[in-house]
Amino acid sequence: MKPTVVLNFKTYLESTGVNAVKLAGICDEVAKDTGANIVVVPQLADLHRIVKEVNIPVYAQSVDNVKPGSCTGHVLPEAVKEAGACGSLLNHSECRLKLADIDALIGKLRELKMTSIVCTNNVAVSMAASALNPDFVAVEPPELIGSGISVSKAQPEIVTGSVDAVKKVNKNVRVLCGAGISTGEDFKKAVELGTEGVLLASGIIKAKDQKAALLDLVKGVY
Amino acid sequence: MKPTVVLNFKTYLESTGVNAVKLAGICDEVAKDTGANIVVVPQLADLHRIVKEVNIPVYAQSVDNVKPGSCTGHVLPEAVKEAGACGSLLNHSECRLKLADIDALIGKLRELKMTSIVCTNNVAVSMAASALNPDFVAVEPPELIGSGISVSKAQPEIVTGSVDAVKKVNKNVRVLCGAGISTGEDFKKAVELGTEGVLLASGIIKAKDQKAALLDLVKGVY
Amino acid sequence: MKPTVVLNFKTYLESTGVNAVKLAGICDEVAKDTGANIVVVPQLADLHRIVKEVNIPVYAQSVDNVKPGSCTGHVLPEAVKEAGACGSLLNHSECRLKLADIDALIGKLRELKMTSIVCTNNVAVSMAASALNPDFVAVEPPELIGSGISVSKAQPEIVTGSVDAVKKVNKNVRVLCGAGISTGEDFKKAVELGTEGVLLASGIIKAKDQKAALLDLVKGVY
Amino acid sequence: MKPTVVLNFKTYLESTGVNAVKLAGICDEVAKDTGANIVVVPQLADLHRIVKEVNIPVYAQSVDNVKPGSCTGHVLPEAVKEAGACGSLLNHSECRLKLADIDALIGKLRELKMTSIVCTNNVAVSMAASALNPDFVAVEPPELIGSGISVSKAQPEIVTGSVDAVKKVNKNVRVLCGAGISTGEDFKKAVELGTEGVLLASGIIKAKDQKAALLDLVKGVY
Repeated sequence: MKPTVVLNFKTYLESTGVNAVKLAGICDEVAKDTGANIVVVPQLADLHRIVKEVNIPVYAQSVDNVKPGSCTGHVLPEAVKEAGACGSLLNHSECRLKLADIDALIGKLRELKMTSIVCTNNVAVSMAASALNPDFVAVEPPELIGSGISVSKAQPEIVTGSVDAVKKVNKNVRVLCGAGISTGEDFKKAVELGTEGVLLASGIIKAKDQKAALLDLVKGVY
Repeated sequence: MKPTVVLNFKTYLESTGVNAVKLAGICDEVAKDTGANIVVVPQLADLHRIVKEVNIPVYAQSVDNVKPGSCTGHVLPEAVKEAGACGSLLNHSECRLKLADIDALIGKLRELKMTSIVCTNNVAVSMAASALNPDFVAVEPPELIGSGISVSKAQPEIVTGSVDAVKKVNKNVRVLCGAGISTGEDFKKAVELGTEGVLLASGIIKAKDQKAALLDLVKGVY
Repeated sequence: MKPTVVLNFKTYLESTGVNAVKLAGICDEVAKDTGANIVVVPQLADLHRIVKEVNIPVYAQSVDNVKPGSCTGHVLPEAVKEAGACGSLLNHSECRLKLADIDALIGKLRELKMTSIVCTNNVAVSMAASALNPDFVAVEPPELIGSGISVSKAQPEIVTGSVDAVKKVNKNVRVLCGAGISTGEDFKKAVELGTEGVLLASGIIKAKDQKAALLDLVKGVY
Repeated sequence: MKPTVVLNFKTYLESTGVNAVKLAGICDEVAKDTGANIVVVPQLADLHRIVKEVNIPVYAQSVDNVKPGSCTGHVLPEAVKEAGACGSLLNHSECRLKLADIDALIGKLRELKMTSIVCTNNVAVSMAASALNPDFVAVEPPELIGSGISVSKAQPEIVTGSVDAVKKVNKNVRVLCGAGISTGEDFKKAVELGTEGVLLASGIIKAKDQKAALLDLVKGVY
């Protein structure tokens, strides 16, 4: 499988509404031109309109462990699926979930034939998440969070340690590198260290030239 | 102002995805044919596509008290606005909010020129909500919740008591009757008792013939 | 009624366990010596042992809107009552509650003959809280939070505005000044501006000499 | 290590306040008379007074992932420790925690030399919890929850499957059987199937004769 770039749109105004559609269009174009696997993860209110505009996969930023019926204000996995999403982040650091809900949602997404990416904050939590058998774990090694240190400059063990831990628990789970990624060099290094892609946000979204930033990233591997 | 029917789509499969678009279309048609004020409140993933299809107002089921930026998985009021919503429910019984968040969101929605409807569960809470100056309070008198008793059959004081309490605190706040509404007779009675509309869900959504049920309701007043 | 000093022990180590017992003892002594109304608000794990040691009122920092039975890990109002507490803070800025829970808990505390203090963050929320008829509202005027400005130095309207707003909604509700209080001068000013006491924490708890700091505060009024 | 009986007092009035002290006394007596390992898990407000009365271990029902300082209304692990608790339940089904908080709290409890018991709801979640290296996992096989089926009557694989799954991930983690336990026969069976104890509540607490019920349970093994 080709390495994946998962771009989390968060709630930046630069990736909301019309800007979200525009950014997704750029991702679609870069994916087409370079052959790269790129996944966009817009806010829920933008999801369906982006699905209509692009050919690349669109994921939700989170879904709720609720059933059809009386759950006003919640995000039904079935609704996200019908809107065209083919996967979801779960347990992002800005939207942590309860352990039992992560487990239930991985199962629900699989039942809906959607991809699950569980975000984790250290080696022990990455192992726990892997035991729940998601498609991906996106690890954010604490040494790379808010440190300004990129993967390509950090000790390789920081990433390989997470990959090894995940694979030891569940060899079917693929690992994304969720921190320390800005440049093509970082993407390349992350893949060399055993991850199967990267999860990032501000490095692309807040760039003056989003397309140039994305192209630079992608070209590290493609 | 003409009495309003606010139809909460909740997370029923009968009002999700393609079904949501269809139901919103029925509401649009009935509004056009009868002159009734009808507001639809779909799930977030369906919001934008419904906005594109109908002329009646579309509201969100809830929004989060978050700011643009790093709030993955949350519902930014600005994103909902850009998707075309012109209002939001707040504090629905299935999605209760913290007091401070209700206050902040009423302010944020007003700043975005969006309408706020705060749901409440008794007279004291209705008064508290009114002090926060939302556009509407949707009262669910406990005597009418899950009791099978409709507004048109209940003691009038149950509704007038809520209306009086709200107006006493803040005469600018309009009241919706949020429980005990199934038929046109109920809608008519709710308006006679001083409310300016109704908030309902399953009575229409789960009806065998949604259009007939909605027409029956609307014709109580229009 | 004599002005009240409510001392929130928060989770400072200086006011946990043995230190909590010691600090409560100081409060007890100062109350006895000066005739001041002083209420201590320790953590739940320290509540009962402090009740056994002092004659002044002991309140809980929060309680949960749960019923007797299967609510493992929650704080039953009845349990706090039985441990000897005669009141509780509700909706502290570090422990915000849902609107419906604040309402239910005020009622539950009254039923248990316990005093309720609802913390609020601005004029609108103070009015909303007052509509729920608690014993006290503890207002934290935003202008005094983290500004380093004390009540005695600030514009009087900042406090009188909150007092007037609360009394306008519900004249039975008493107001505590919950921000900008460090010295006896502040306490005196807060009372002159119409509040019936103060809610504070670090100014006493983190003082090098807790007793001297408390005496200085109390002597502004007593 | 001798099999353990962990008795969760929940928020039953029969195990609150004076009743909690009395029940803990019964447990203490039975432990002394039979040599059984019995752990009591009262509400926080009762913890310290029970610690003063009994010789058996006392655990908290939950603790919060907060640090000393400004966390009003939360349960500081350090405060629970100082009150005399030597362990805590985590993630009970009535008090589910976020994955990252379970991980952090297991670490914090170990640092404080306290025992951690993580409750889990199925085999996958039990494996995930085990990866976080708690002292115990208390498994509640879904087949035994609310089914009225006791461990001694159920298919043995339901329990052995959980034990095997936990041990496969982390052989240092001990397993408690957290469902389907009422009688001494159940306790005996649970131990035969590889668990190192049981977690239970209503079977003892709601018994007409709490001491007789506890003795019956304990004598299955002791």
